[in-house]
Amino acid sequence: MRIPKHIGVIPDGNRRWAVNNGMTKEMGYDKGLDPGLELFRLCKDAGVKEITYYGFTTDNTKRPKMQVMAFTKACVDAVNMLSKEDAQLLVVGNSESPMFPKELLPYTERRKFGSGQIKVNFLVNYGWHWDLNNVNNEKVSSKGELHNYLKSSDVSRIDLVIRWGGRRRLSGFLPVQTVYSDFYVVDDYWPDFKPDHFYDALKWYGKQDITLGG
Amino acid sequence: MRIPKHIGVIPDGNRRWAVNNGMTKEMGYDKGLDPGLELFRLCKDAGVKEITYYGFTTDNTKRPKMQVMAFTKACVDAVNMLSKEDAQLLVVGNSESPMFPKELLPYTERRKFGSGQIKVNFLVNYGWHWDLNNVNNEKVSSKGELHNYLKSSDVSRIDLVIRWGGRRRLSGFLPVQTVYSDFYVVDDYWPDFKPDHFYDALKWYGKQDITLGG
Repeated sequence: MRIPKHIGVIPDGNRRWAVNNGMTKEMGYDKGLDPGLELFRLCKDAGVKEITYYGFTTDNTKRPKMQVMAFTKACVDAVNMLSKEDAQLLVVGNSESPMFPKELLPYTERRKFGSGQIKVNFLVNYGWHWDLNNVNNEKVSSKGELHNYLKSSDVSRIDLVIRWGGRRRLSGFLPVQTVYSDFYVVDDYWPDFKPDHFYDALKWYGKQDITLGG
Repeated sequence: MRIPKHIGVIPDGNRRWAVNNGMTKEMGYDKGLDPGLELFRLCKDAGVKEITYYGFTTDNTKRPKMQVMAFTKACVDAVNMLSKEDAQLLVVGNSESPMFPKELLPYTERRKFGSGQIKVNFLVNYGWHWDLNNVNNEKVSSKGELHNYLKSSDVSRIDLVIRWGGRRRLSGFLPVQTVYSDFYVVDDYWPDFKPDHFYDALKWYGKQDITLGG
């Protein structure tokens, strides 16, 4: 079966899951940590070469302060957990902003942990506009060069985006890397992650005809 | 019911439809003309303010010559048909390339036809890379300004993308304008268009919770 080289993960639905389970909204983010680790291990075992997690965005920081604190903490915890795995880890986002957690500054250059066999990118205080607005205005002659000017230049093209939480949109997730991505949506909320979600996504991806417009 | 202000249309599946109906691949594009007009009229009647059709891309021009000629002709015909409707019509694409049909050069500035009550954008020889590589490298301070530097700057943000032909990907369709778009996929091929596809997409859209990341 054809395995995607690079999977993008949009782990949505944490607040709705919390409310459904009788908690306040901000209590859902913490329940997304184990799913994130489980998915990482499944990807590694399946031979996926790169995973990019959509942590939080500059847009998300408009949310109520309790939620901002909660998802920021969850992202810091997630990165720390991943740094104990076999990963080449990179945090991508606007680290010059006060919304960027200082604990993650050491991860803004890619570092190898363990055997480092899989690349992991974690988007923290990411913004699609921040990512794109650095593209050089001299005529960039090839698609490869435009990619080099992105703030997210060390994140390669994504083959498959898997979004939990049922919404069918990219929400600003790496507009350049996702131009040709196949997009699989899981209706369940992220904290209700199951390995079958991943396997179903892979099965579906294996049946897609990848044409890149040709 | 909440109506999307701007709908993006990806009319895919023409070649598969042709083969399914015992024709050669390039014969499907011509069968996409009436659907395009019918959809235009449904959008206008529903109060949609802007429609953007994904005609053909620079990637598509790598296809066999018979197909390139056929889809190019279909796009020229489609634009001519739309110019007889009440539309403010604009063709967006790399018009400096030999792949751009000269017949459409007069449409590369927006013109009003009839009562011009709805904006229609038609992408011809469009490329996401061509669109983005002009973004100024001086720090663009607001999202609005980055939009102004796009080659597609006169195409506004898209609320709902409807893609026919079953594929779940954007295929390079206006990466900036689609960052927050809800994405509805119709499994039927474009030449098998039915008004119900449109009504179902609107009903679905009306149930989505538009958060723009907040």
